[in-house]
Amino acid sequence: MTAQLDIDNLIGQLTLEEKAALTIGSDFWHTAPIDRLGIPAIMVSDGPHGLRAQLDEADHVGLAGSVPATCFPTASGLASSWNVDLFRTVGEALGRESRKWHVAVLLGPGVNMKRSPLCGRNFEYLSEDPQLAGILATAMVHGVQSQGVGTSVKHYAANNQEEDRLRVSAEVDPRTLREIYLPAFERIVKEANPWTVMCAYNKVNGTYASEHHWLLTEVLRDEWGFDGLVVSDWGAVHDRVAALKAGLDLEMPPHRGVSDAAVVAAVQDGSLSEDVLDQGVRRVLRLVNAALPALAEETDVSNEEHHALARRAAHESAVLLKNEGGVLPLRLPSGSRLAVIGEFARTPRYQGAGSSQVTPTRLDLAVDELTAGVGSEVEVTFAAGFGVGTTENDQQLLAEAVQAADGADAVVVFLGLPAAEESEGFDRTHMDLPTNQLNLLNAVADVHDRVVVVLANGSTVRMATWEGRAKAILECWLSGQAAGGAAADLLLGVANPSGKLAETIPLRLQDNSSFLNFPGDPGVVRYGEGIFIGYRGYDKANQEVSYPFGFGLSYTTFDIGGVTAQVAGAVETGDLAVTVTASVTNTGSVAGQEVVQVYVGDPQSSVARPVRELKAFTKVALEPGESRQVELTLVERDFAFWSELHGRWALEAGEFEVAVGSSSRQLAAKVPVQLEAPRLAAPLGPMSTLHEWLADPRGRELVMAGADAATNHLLADEELIKVVGTMPMATLAAFPGMGFSDAQLEQMIQQLD
Amino acid sequence: MTAQLDIDNLIGQLTLEEKAALTIGSDFWHTAPIDRLGIPAIMVSDGPHGLRAQLDEADHVGLAGSVPATCFPTASGLASSWNVDLFRTVGEALGRESRKWHVAVLLGPGVNMKRSPLCGRNFEYLSEDPQLAGILATAMVHGVQSQGVGTSVKHYAANNQEEDRLRVSAEVDPRTLREIYLPAFERIVKEANPWTVMCAYNKVNGTYASEHHWLLTEVLRDEWGFDGLVVSDWGAVHDRVAALKAGLDLEMPPHRGVSDAAVVAAVQDGSLSEDVLDQGVRRVLRLVNAALPALAEETDVSNEEHHALARRAAHESAVLLKNEGGVLPLRLPSGSRLAVIGEFARTPRYQGAGSSQVTPTRLDLAVDELTAGVGSEVEVTFAAGFGVGTTENDQQLLAEAVQAADGADAVVVFLGLPAAEESEGFDRTHMDLPTNQLNLLNAVADVHDRVVVVLANGSTVRMATWEGRAKAILECWLSGQAAGGAAADLLLGVANPSGKLAETIPLRLQDNSSFLNFPGDPGVVRYGEGIFIGYRGYDKANQEVSYPFGFGLSYTTFDIGGVTAQVAGAVETGDLAVTVTASVTNTGSVAGQEVVQVYVGDPQSSVARPVRELKAFTKVALEPGESRQVELTLVERDFAFWSELHGRWALEAGEFEVAVGSSSRQLAAKVPVQLEAPRLAAPLGPMSTLHEWLADPRGRELVMAGADAATNHLLADEELIKVVGTMPMATLAAFPGMGFSDAQLEQMIQQLD
Repeated sequence: MTAQLDIDNLIGQLTLEEKAALTIGSDFWHTAPIDRLGIPAIMVSDGPHGLRAQLDEADHVGLAGSVPATCFPTASGLASSWNVDLFRTVGEALGRESRKWHVAVLLGPGVNMKRSPLCGRNFEYLSEDPQLAGILATAMVHGVQSQGVGTSVKHYAANNQEEDRLRVSAEVDPRTLREIYLPAFERIVKEANPWTVMCAYNKVNGTYASEHHWLLTEVLRDEWGFDGLVVSDWGAVHDRVAALKAGLDLEMPPHRGVSDAAVVAAVQDGSLSEDVLDQGVRRVLRLVNAALPALAEETDVSNEEHHALARRAAHESAVLLKNEGGVLPLRLPSGSRLAVIGEFARTPRYQGAGSSQVTPTRLDLAVDELTAGVGSEVEVTFAAGFGVGTTENDQQLLAEAVQAADGADAVVVFLGLPAAEESEGFDRTHMDLPTNQLNLLNAVADVHDRVVVVLANGSTVRMATWEGRAKAILECWLSGQAAGGAAADLLLGVANPSGKLAETIPLRLQDNSSFLNFPGDPGVVRYGEGIFIGYRGYDKANQEVSYPFGFGLSYTTFDIGGVTAQVAGAVETGDLAVTVTASVTNTGSVAGQEVVQVYVGDPQSSVARPVRELKAFTKVALEPGESRQVELTLVERDFAFWSELHGRWALEAGEFEVAVGSSSRQLAAKVPVQLEAPRLAAPLGPMSTLHEWLADPRGRELVMAGADAATNHLLADEELIKVVGTMPMATLAAFPGMGFSDAQLEQMIQQLD
Repeated sequence: MTAQLDIDNLIGQLTLEEKAALTIGSDFWHTAPIDRLGIPAIMVSDGPHGLRAQLDEADHVGLAGSVPATCFPTASGLASSWNVDLFRTVGEALGRESRKWHVAVLLGPGVNMKRSPLCGRNFEYLSEDPQLAGILATAMVHGVQSQGVGTSVKHYAANNQEEDRLRVSAEVDPRTLREIYLPAFERIVKEANPWTVMCAYNKVNGTYASEHHWLLTEVLRDEWGFDGLVVSDWGAVHDRVAALKAGLDLEMPPHRGVSDAAVVAAVQDGSLSEDVLDQGVRRVLRLVNAALPALAEETDVSNEEHHALARRAAHESAVLLKNEGGVLPLRLPSGSRLAVIGEFARTPRYQGAGSSQVTPTRLDLAVDELTAGVGSEVEVTFAAGFGVGTTENDQQLLAEAVQAADGADAVVVFLGLPAAEESEGFDRTHMDLPTNQLNLLNAVADVHDRVVVVLANGSTVRMATWEGRAKAILECWLSGQAAGGAAADLLLGVANPSGKLAETIPLRLQDNSSFLNFPGDPGVVRYGEGIFIGYRGYDKANQEVSYPFGFGLSYTTFDIGGVTAQVAGAVETGDLAVTVTASVTNTGSVAGQEVVQVYVGDPQSSVARPVRELKAFTKVALEPGESRQVELTLVERDFAFWSELHGRWALEAGEFEVAVGSSSRQLAAKVPVQLEAPRLAAPLGPMSTLHEWLADPRGRELVMAGADAATNHLLADEELIKVVGTMPMATLAAFPGMGFSDAQLEQMIQQLD
């Protein structure tokens, strides 16, 4: 163990100015060193899917070049693996590369929800589902931190668009925050103890996330028990003193001479307690201490091994959406000809732009990998088909592509989103592929009837307008530096697709529940759809979609059966556990992996709830004919909703539906589960309605006991009681001539207790 | 002129207790008399579409029998007339009937927006569009008040559901209130000076409408200039003192002994200024004064004339939705047979339940009216087909109906919503017709290929599931006591349908933009769709509908052409006027009426705006072949949106689209209109983004002047500037090594001025 800083001792020796400096860093990527006390600076670097370490201060906004690093699939892709182990393994690799470059904290993963398909940063985010995002990111944090390197879970919270991201206020109700936008953070904090959490740029309900005491202290620390450091997103701090009070420990990059001076002045004039400052300093020093052991060592990284891991990750990231007539994997006998069409086969799109942009250690090109993969007996013809950096048709390229496709034994068209459409900093305005690519597809499909489309895009693209022209669609996302090799492996059957959609592909952008409210008006975005984002929205509105959440095909087939759900323990004793079992069988002829997904629904509830929500899943590898029993355990929280009335998670007694399937809409079985729980109804009072009094046994007794002739007449009138029953008792008591008075109501309430 | 109360003098003579009593009424329907000072009680009564005067205190919730009065079509129907003159005429009739019964204030009209098709009280509300509702209700208020009788415009505000209506908080943003939920009230207040406004039961953003100072005083009085009285909805007051302070003048019914005592105590202990109480008293006394002249007279009402008016109103309320092959009007030669099917032809549904339920002076039955209308040479067979009060099939009735339809020359099926599904006090949970009625329709349509459906329902019903079985659909709404006669007139061609939908009929309930948020969770309903209610939502999401807003057929055809839009005046001089002209021609062979509708859209805007919004309309009666030129004037407000940033209505310079047509989706012409207006952008400051600085000529100059090499490099990098440009200048200045410092930014801002 390397020598650790003696924090208590240091706090006593640090000057006020030094303390202030420690809570604002020293430059774009480093904490402040205090040489006279032997406090070193540590370095942090971008990189949820690959390290983006800028060793020299290359530019003043931190977006220029970085050291070579393995570029793994971006979050959209990796999340489609639904593979917890893979997330941990990739995390370990990211941690090793960070160690190698003496980076103490890797700034990721990003676990914001995909509220709209348009968010410019969706390629860096995991899912539209908080449970899936939380479980996968937890594994990544475990992986990175297992290497002695910290993570920074970001962007906390409700940072779900790029439009006006530094100023916009996300107007989102507490239940929606609790059920949708916070749970991924909550899980990671509770299960993986991330070294740091990064606050978001935006405001949440009017207050900057960087100054949000409820978010940064009450929820994060007091409720969830977070004991790490909160760092600002780069430039998110506007009032350093307010941020410090709210619980933001480290401002990055440092607004030197302003933020530190403000902190010093505030302590001196008594408006900021030095204890609050000390707390921030302690957390910075604890972070330094945590980082020291790894920083003291030299770490070797095998670029080759990491590239192989990137290739495996890209295999698992791909989602086979369509495979009519089993056109995939390609069967190419000697002497046959494969047409590889689309500039992306030669100039791959494999990552997005912005703070996560990596300098890859190498780069696979699909056309090369396919040529190598099919061997010398198969002819490969390449045609670019369209130009990158433009959405205009190029008739020459189009004609070449048609010629290449015409008469080919197999045609694979590589399409995707142009780089300029996916980046941190701005959102998309539509979800269509560029016109020139769709024209290419149509032209090629006119001369060939078994066209395979391979997609490279970090955010979902609309497919309803063109998918009829393709026999197979392989969604590869932005799959990192090994994307080309992985695509070749999947197309040729060297690897079997096993990815599942981590987000719904709607028929139209307008079907998305955030459509009317994205990206909001100047300064404000209302989360009007509430908890009904992603599949929760499409399911609630019973909307047809192109491909549902959780969907993905394989070259083999699976059967899920024998689903049971067994209740043990109870809510009242705090040990409720519902064990869901199912058997899954590979019913096809090649090895493959299936993701068994468990959804929970509460058809009868006092609040509006989603039709069903993902609560558990497991990915199972099976040889042909092999069968496996899986067991997944659901706990109280998996059945609960956030009750605003009670200010807590609440499970409402009754029948739930546990559904098990291979996607959110391919459900092999729906099993009813009856759960008992303490009654949730608010205690009766003057503002309880007559209906509520009558629904309560004791309340009914008291109403009946006090009823005069007029009241009895009312109670007996079915039509009238339907209307009057909705009135609070206090309102009825106030009516002149009503059967009971205020005094009587007061007495009735006393008698209740 | 009858002797008026000398209010100033009375205020000086009233005791504190008497003042308190005056602001809470004396019983369910009367204000408090103060006999010793000669202040009489005046009576108020329910009745937006017919007087519901309870002369004796018949029951303790005010929902029992009332004096006979003409029952006009409910608001759903009357609004479908799009006939301003008719609203005024019906208003005059309502005023006369009120005078006759010595009712001083008629409690209506109800102008709440139809946010969801499910709201139980939709039958009493006018439209999903605030402009249509406001214009029509203004005419009704003019009509009633022309008789010396007051109105009470209700329910102010955001009372758009019955579920939990006495407690729920409508969470609605200011722009949505200003653009959707308030404008109908605003127009009536500004143009028709209603004697009273009735506050709603619910909370608005957490505060009871009865205690909402912003609503009752700041907006209603200070902004709109209301100088009448605010009365509570019956039972809406929970804290009389808080309500008085907020601007609620009269509590009804009076919570005697509690509310008055609280007011007295509050004045005595100084927590309520007696001036505030005096203001309420003055308004009550002013209302009494206004009522005295009419109350002093006896008024005769001709029930026959009013019934005839009700019949004409019902003609104009009906919307002909479908008329394939011109099956309507019915052509019944001598010797032919007409089958009249459906219990509603004999037991009509013509009004809804709750506070607007009228005791009609007489009641037309469609089967009788049709029998009389076709004359003795045509045989009329009636079959009930289904039972009312049940949704169960009755095989006997079904068989009779099929028998009646089989071989008939014409078949008319009277369907509609059961009475139990439409009432004040609770909402619907679906929008389908009952199964037994749909089964009847199917059975009849199996034996007859020209079935005509006549509908009686106050809220829209889903049609997509069954409309294919009907050749014609005549939507009659709840059309009052003359509904049966009017339906006969329309079916037989004695009257020509001229109604237009005042609300969209969607394909599915789920397509409605409020679907995910209606009726909310306990205690709270989020207006998540914002301004996009009704057709604004369907249009924005480009959703197919069954029948669009503004739609309705006629027995003749019309052509709208020659559309022009002429701009005069300017925003800057406050006299902008856009004159829209069009010619409308009756191109068919019978006389009829067409509604020319003018919609405005702003395709390029800094905020999200509806595709188009109704701004003006006129109903034109034309003989066959007749043509008329119409001219409608749009003013600044018709192009403006409520700017939250500026806290006012704002018109953004640029190209608008003025569309003219016969419905919101049958647009004869779309005319571009270019409008100039002062620039809306907020002044540049430290939190303005780099993009905003660069978009401003002077800002750009200053950025360029101060730029060093690094900044110039950034500005030249197209990809980078797209991202970095979204950052506020203050954030960039805070970045270490950035080309300009805080001091420089401060200097730049000084140089701006």
